[in-house]
Amino acid sequence: MMTTLLIKGGIVVNADRQFQADVLCVDGVIAQIDETICAPEDAQVIDASGQLVMPGGIDPHTHMNFPFMGTTTVDDFYSGTSAALAGGTTTIIDFVIPNPQEPLLEAYQKWRRWAESAVADYSFHVAITWWDESVRQDMKTLVEQHGVNSFKHFMAYKNAIMCDDETLVNSFRRSLELGAMPTVHAENGELVYLLQQQVKEMGITGPEGHPLSRPAMVEAEAANRAIAIADVIGVPIYVVHVSCQESADAIARARARGQRVYGEVLAGHLVIDDSVYRDPDYTQAAAHVMSPPFRPKHHQEALWTGLQSGQLHTTATDHCTFCAAQKAAGADDFAKIPNGCGGVEERMAVIWDAGVGTGRLTPSEFVAITSANAAKLFNIYPRKGLIAVGSDADLVIWDPQASRTISAKTHHSNNDFNVFEGRTVTGIPSHTISHGKVVWANGQLHVEKGAGHYIKRAAFGDNFTANATRQQQLTPTAVKR
Amino acid sequence: MMTTLLIKGGIVVNADRQFQADVLCVDGVIAQIDETICAPEDAQVIDASGQLVMPGGIDPHTHMNFPFMGTTTVDDFYSGTSAALAGGTTTIIDFVIPNPQEPLLEAYQKWRRWAESAVADYSFHVAITWWDESVRQDMKTLVEQHGVNSFKHFMAYKNAIMCDDETLVNSFRRSLELGAMPTVHAENGELVYLLQQQVKEMGITGPEGHPLSRPAMVEAEAANRAIAIADVIGVPIYVVHVSCQESADAIARARARGQRVYGEVLAGHLVIDDSVYRDPDYTQAAAHVMSPPFRPKHHQEALWTGLQSGQLHTTATDHCTFCAAQKAAGADDFAKIPNGCGGVEERMAVIWDAGVGTGRLTPSEFVAITSANAAKLFNIYPRKGLIAVGSDADLVIWDPQASRTISAKTHHSNNDFNVFEGRTVTGIPSHTISHGKVVWANGQLHVEKGAGHYIKRAAFGDNFTANATRQQQLTPTAVKR
Amino acid sequence: MMTTLLIKGGIVVNADRQFQADVLCVDGVIAQIDETICAPEDAQVIDASGQLVMPGGIDPHTHMNFPFMGTTTVDDFYSGTSAALAGGTTTIIDFVIPNPQEPLLEAYQKWRRWAESAVADYSFHVAITWWDESVRQDMKTLVEQHGVNSFKHFMAYKNAIMCDDETLVNSFRRSLELGAMPTVHAENGELVYLLQQQVKEMGITGPEGHPLSRPAMVEAEAANRAIAIADVIGVPIYVVHVSCQESADAIARARARGQRVYGEVLAGHLVIDDSVYRDPDYTQAAAHVMSPPFRPKHHQEALWTGLQSGQLHTTATDHCTFCAAQKAAGADDFAKIPNGCGGVEERMAVIWDAGVGTGRLTPSEFVAITSANAAKLFNIYPRKGLIAVGSDADLVIWDPQASRTISAKTHHSNNDFNVFEGRTVTGIPSHTISHGKVVWANGQLHVEKGAGHYIKRAAFGDNFTANATRQQQLTPTAVKR
Amino acid sequence: MMTTLLIKGGIVVNADRQFQADVLCVDGVIAQIDETICAPEDAQVIDASGQLVMPGGIDPHTHMNFPFMGTTTVDDFYSGTSAALAGGTTTIIDFVIPNPQEPLLEAYQKWRRWAESAVADYSFHVAITWWDESVRQDMKTLVEQHGVNSFKHFMAYKNAIMCDDETLVNSFRRSLELGAMPTVHAENGELVYLLQQQVKEMGITGPEGHPLSRPAMVEAEAANRAIAIADVIGVPIYVVHVSCQESADAIARARARGQRVYGEVLAGHLVIDDSVYRDPDYTQAAAHVMSPPFRPKHHQEALWTGLQSGQLHTTATDHCTFCAAQKAAGADDFAKIPNGCGGVEERMAVIWDAGVGTGRLTPSEFVAITSANAAKLFNIYPRKGLIAVGSDADLVIWDPQASRTISAKTHHSNNDFNVFEGRTVTGIPSHTISHGKVVWANGQLHVEKGAGHYIKRAAFGDNFTANATRQQQLTPTAVKR
Repeated sequence: MMTTLLIKGGIVVNADRQFQADVLCVDGVIAQIDETICAPEDAQVIDASGQLVMPGGIDPHTHMNFPFMGTTTVDDFYSGTSAALAGGTTTIIDFVIPNPQEPLLEAYQKWRRWAESAVADYSFHVAITWWDESVRQDMKTLVEQHGVNSFKHFMAYKNAIMCDDETLVNSFRRSLELGAMPTVHAENGELVYLLQQQVKEMGITGPEGHPLSRPAMVEAEAANRAIAIADVIGVPIYVVHVSCQESADAIARARARGQRVYGEVLAGHLVIDDSVYRDPDYTQAAAHVMSPPFRPKHHQEALWTGLQSGQLHTTATDHCTFCAAQKAAGADDFAKIPNGCGGVEERMAVIWDAGVGTGRLTPSEFVAITSANAAKLFNIYPRKGLIAVGSDADLVIWDPQASRTISAKTHHSNNDFNVFEGRTVTGIPSHTISHGKVVWANGQLHVEKGAGHYIKRAAFGDNFTANATRQQQLTPTAVKR
Repeated sequence: MMTTLLIKGGIVVNADRQFQADVLCVDGVIAQIDETICAPEDAQVIDASGQLVMPGGIDPHTHMNFPFMGTTTVDDFYSGTSAALAGGTTTIIDFVIPNPQEPLLEAYQKWRRWAESAVADYSFHVAITWWDESVRQDMKTLVEQHGVNSFKHFMAYKNAIMCDDETLVNSFRRSLELGAMPTVHAENGELVYLLQQQVKEMGITGPEGHPLSRPAMVEAEAANRAIAIADVIGVPIYVVHVSCQESADAIARARARGQRVYGEVLAGHLVIDDSVYRDPDYTQAAAHVMSPPFRPKHHQEALWTGLQSGQLHTTATDHCTFCAAQKAAGADDFAKIPNGCGGVEERMAVIWDAGVGTGRLTPSEFVAITSANAAKLFNIYPRKGLIAVGSDADLVIWDPQASRTISAKTHHSNNDFNVFEGRTVTGIPSHTISHGKVVWANGQLHVEKGAGHYIKRAAFGDNFTANATRQQQLTPTAVKR
Repeated sequence: MMTTLLIKGGIVVNADRQFQADVLCVDGVIAQIDETICAPEDAQVIDASGQLVMPGGIDPHTHMNFPFMGTTTVDDFYSGTSAALAGGTTTIIDFVIPNPQEPLLEAYQKWRRWAESAVADYSFHVAITWWDESVRQDMKTLVEQHGVNSFKHFMAYKNAIMCDDETLVNSFRRSLELGAMPTVHAENGELVYLLQQQVKEMGITGPEGHPLSRPAMVEAEAANRAIAIADVIGVPIYVVHVSCQESADAIARARARGQRVYGEVLAGHLVIDDSVYRDPDYTQAAAHVMSPPFRPKHHQEALWTGLQSGQLHTTATDHCTFCAAQKAAGADDFAKIPNGCGGVEERMAVIWDAGVGTGRLTPSEFVAITSANAAKLFNIYPRKGLIAVGSDADLVIWDPQASRTISAKTHHSNNDFNVFEGRTVTGIPSHTISHGKVVWANGQLHVEKGAGHYIKRAAFGDNFTANATRQQQLTPTAVKR
Repeated sequence: MMTTLLIKGGIVVNADRQFQADVLCVDGVIAQIDETICAPEDAQVIDASGQLVMPGGIDPHTHMNFPFMGTTTVDDFYSGTSAALAGGTTTIIDFVIPNPQEPLLEAYQKWRRWAESAVADYSFHVAITWWDESVRQDMKTLVEQHGVNSFKHFMAYKNAIMCDDETLVNSFRRSLELGAMPTVHAENGELVYLLQQQVKEMGITGPEGHPLSRPAMVEAEAANRAIAIADVIGVPIYVVHVSCQESADAIARARARGQRVYGEVLAGHLVIDDSVYRDPDYTQAAAHVMSPPFRPKHHQEALWTGLQSGQLHTTATDHCTFCAAQKAAGADDFAKIPNGCGGVEERMAVIWDAGVGTGRLTPSEFVAITSANAAKLFNIYPRKGLIAVGSDADLVIWDPQASRTISAKTHHSNNDFNVFEGRTVTGIPSHTISHGKVVWANGQLHVEKGAGHYIKRAAFGDNFTANATRQQQLTPTAVKR
């Protein structure tokens, strides 16, 4: 059966411009955009007067149903993507994270099964946590047969999923061959390990030890190193959850050399500072434990200006939720607190409020950093990230005047905590549309388990390698002797 | 009579993506874009197989019919815009430059008359070369009645059209009130004046004295100063012809603070270095005299990486042509050589060849810096700068395989010299389409005097002031005492 | 009569090292430094065990007896230099500031007369506040006959003593010819003027308007401009009272190009932030009004790291004291509050406490930034700034364990206010020695009116011009045609 | 027998100043410095009129008698230190480099034996090439009993002496505990290894492959990483042979944060560029193979300005000589060419000529970067690096007017090649004095095998730890819960 949805009277906002138009969605795809469209028979009509019609958000960094540090996140793909839709995000890119020695394809299939309950679209980055010839082969299979075009590398978590430089080099080279984007979690795991011991030796075992063991320099070093390796190999690179001035600077320096480096910022890092770890209530403090940690306040300005100036590109959440009972595992040792916080539902409203509401960003820039840039960088544009004829009808209707106060009591995550608790934001989604269906309207979810599609992402083509840095463009030749 | 043109089989390249599509133009406007469009009856059809279809170039910095330094450029609007079309540029933004004390509106009307012969679309920046209350009033009239949304300020040319800081402050404030973009020619005129004397005292009177009198620091100082003034006033700013590393750095620094600063690069500065001024042939050397001058080679890399990283935004030419006889005026004193070079015809091919051909830029990035960004920054997007239904049918069909060798013998400017003489470029326009008409095809111009339209540019709206820097967003309050 | 003083058992600290030694002073000069010196007959002996013996401080930026903004500072040379000695500072460099059109030599003679009451050594920078041929001539006379080797330029104070670029260019060139150091007060006076009007238009007339009218960018712009002019002319430059990150960055950028640029930091800017201007008590707030103003806290870190890394060089006070009654002149208009604060007595202890006490600086680095560097930069080294045989016996014996709490009640300035009021510092002078005489001991001053010497400072020699930047070292030649 | 030497009529140049004085040396130590000293009976008198008397050079980076890459350097300590004296360098700091698993003390004793033939003073850095508890213990023994206060870490040479991050962390912490300076050879060994394979796969096996396998980014990454590790641990760090802009930038960035980071530059990197590797004569090209390699020319400017601005601190040579027969080992594979070049004799003249002769540096700055700074950084100041009463009489009398042309035919190294061959330098040593004896005079060496002393270097004291970065100064505390 055809489904037809007409959004009337709104201002369409794309990354390049905004304009008044009606938007007609037919069978899950945008069919027409015009100043005035008469409603077809049987069409559902939404009045978007005074509102903005934007591409649905893409959160390129989530962990649903994630087994990590001896437990599993409270949000599975069903609750996690439900929360996403409630917040205007219509696509997530989650992570397949094999254990060391686990075949990549097995891990991939496992995550695909877990994701079958999703109510919004999803895709997967695959982590490279070990290396041998089978990994090399599986990377190819994933790219060519399973629509994976990005691989993740953890530079932290020593004695677990950490990559050493040799693996980074091998995997980045392979990514280049396959036309896939390498991404990194940038923290120097050796230094984190050292500092965890030192901080505990100082008698600090509570959550306040967490940021002490992961200072900005630890992140900046790893970011700089990964970027240097990518530069030498001639492959673009995407740095996940850039949280501090020094990492943002490392990215900006590389870009100033002409290197293709991209940076992702988490909504939390933009507005929450490290004072949370000194909360006298352990539950509160532990609930904020994630890596990289929240930072001293001045780092926030660097992240905002990075987004404003185009040196940082996407926003995400690293949504990875553990409840108070799970967080209690680290009551005697901050290093055992499961790392992770939520946010997939709140990201767009928090960034609109603190970004557009303050005059830092235009609405078009908001679309760029919450949707369009992620779609371009992970090669699902213009299917996602753009309101254009032929694009998926994944939309959010944004009410710039409406407010709400964020709370765990009302959010759609399974978690018992919300890092944005009590924050009142102005600018929220009145409707979310996924594949042409209204899945969120006026505070109510209308989702169907399993309605989310797995989104294959094609390998990058010519322009990916064309983008290699200057050094790779030179063709040195042997000297005749 | 309806004119209908169908471009078949090409790859449409916009700033955000590229895709295979046919493009139908009806009555000067893009009417349809689709994978396959059947040719309407009477439609002219162009086979663009193997070619790219891109938005026609916008050159935001030209001087046609310009009376300067005691003479007038050899290119008027007819020859200048003819050359533009031959090179794939369908819109120019020229400058109205009142003499000190000359009413702005009189100057504006004069330039409008001169431009009536144009064969391509044109618009005008207006220079603020003096200040009094009438200037303040005329700025408003120009913005509100004449479609001017940008004002130019010369920080060089002491005792002529140079603005002092007081005028910069006054005019930038006025621009902010009116929603108009201030632009600057950034060179410290006081230092240029000093150095011209010093260089001549050293016995250097030939064209090699020209770059000695205008070193990079002289430009960088002025760029930094104009940016600081714009920051304090809270208005965006556009720096024309950024030619050196240090100016690009000043822009990048400001952007890293979140300030809205934009930079323009000239095609010539990207590929020509300052060795030209030491040519033993005076005619050759003098023909390259323009300000800022061509620079030592390493500056070129900074300009390219600025464009690649998005810290510089547009490309232009400062097309301002004087023939050998005119350049001879400075035979005994380089300071009297009329300043200016051509390039409006060569810009796109030179940048494609040195930018896309070397792998520095993708085709979409090429469109951004030759057309879309200028359209956005001067508020004529999406009418210009985009291939979309409803946009002006100003297009260039680009043959990425074809080559030609640039020469004054074959160019369409009236000038007897070409700064790119002898350069063979790969990637040239096979057809240029202006308002849906083929005006350049396979080496032949088909232009009609006066066919160019004056393009009004609306004042900037809410997002312009929303873009103001942080300082302006704070609302300081008085302390109660 | 011979005066002989022996300081026994202390640790001598010079800028290059520290070592245990006794110091013998004879007739105002250091006569011997040795591990153990037996006290000559009649020698006064000071036991410096457990204490440091350092070169007396040099404050290169004070204004005693200064007629400014319609009134005159409460400290004359007698009280001002008394306060200096009480704090361990044995030499000040004050400013001769001619009114526009006032002959330089007349102003110089006037200040020399005012200074006759000084109890510590003093010297003079001379300000260039206007320009004509007589100024050019008088600069030469001052350098060659009066021991002036530095000229000051105010880039702020429009309609009063502000220099425009033309005067800067003329005076910097003249300084280069004469072997004199140009110095600048870096604030863009045009922007200050604009902002003063704007702030008052916002209804802010109290002292909180003062920092709003002089933001960091206003200072950074001027610093960058002065440095660029000095670079083009090829003369070193000294930037007084660097107060913000952005100015420090401008200096560091220039130094990274190899330019000889030096920066001075005021003790107050290192430890006081701009919250003082929002004090509800007008008297308190107004008492802190000086230019550049105290800054948001993060700027302090930039100043400290500048001193640590050697990118900033000296510390001073800009001691310029106005009492509450004088400050009341601006009760209705912050722009009329006489600008200036004290500090000549507190500088060394405040910097020791916040610099050495926190581990930021070593004792030798403390000597460098409070004494030796100023002596070198103004060419009175090793007569001043060094403990060596033959140097002036201007010493401070520093007790690193002793503390005191700073207060206007106990300070030696005539002022009724102290910006460091209530600050307890650890590390204070137990004795100050001027020309071999104990002038401050254990809390008591022993000074003699007029005992201070005028210190002539010779013009810089070969190494001054040898230090010119690269550009000046190139000798461009004419092209033969 | 007492030896007495009087140097008359020269200009004494120390790092802080220069002045006319006679210098009397008695029994190897400087006994008196005065305007005029009458020659004691039996004193040898040197007329230094028109010349400069400077502290003897210190080369903090040499490899004499070094077994490396399957062969041993042609210079042993006898020939190597002879060459040093001929060039005005009176002290070298060489390296003890244990093989992995070799006990540090055994290696140390081996090198001590090898050094017994030295004719000039020498000291040793000890390399940490592996890690276990015995290494930790031996570091202490070396510091406390053998006068070693610096440890070297190779970040390159995979599968040989390369340190991984874990060893860096362990050794830097140990250095901090012991008051010893960690130093690093900064190149990412993993990337070098990769690039060596890639370059050979491209068919490039000649010496031109050497720089291709070690681009600037490979060095800059490692420098940045080592600096970050030192910052986190709170220990100063010294980066040997900084050869490129990007490494110099990494150091400057860290210093701008207040971190204590020091950089060493090799004479060769200041004046030789990478074109040498494309010499068609294999012998010539291979003779220049060292790591880091000579760089494209623009890097030289960055090194010079680093020295001028005080962001780089010492100059050295990495003197490590292999003859043509040894270099032939890599005829078919550049990666097998023994790495190393000479220079210990030429360093001071090359740097004077290119540094002081061009106006980049003052004579005092020359002394700082060739002698005083190394003495301070390795804690042998003021015994070395200063002309003061009580300092070792290690001096060089410098004739700023005299010239010579450097050649392997006339140098004092055993090598058959000189990287400075054919370079004519103005400014050369007329005499070198070691421990008060004239060892080089007017082109003749007067050395005695074994006359060199081993120089113990004491551990750093309080000011070393006082210098730790800000992070270490904070004392975080546990939150009470």
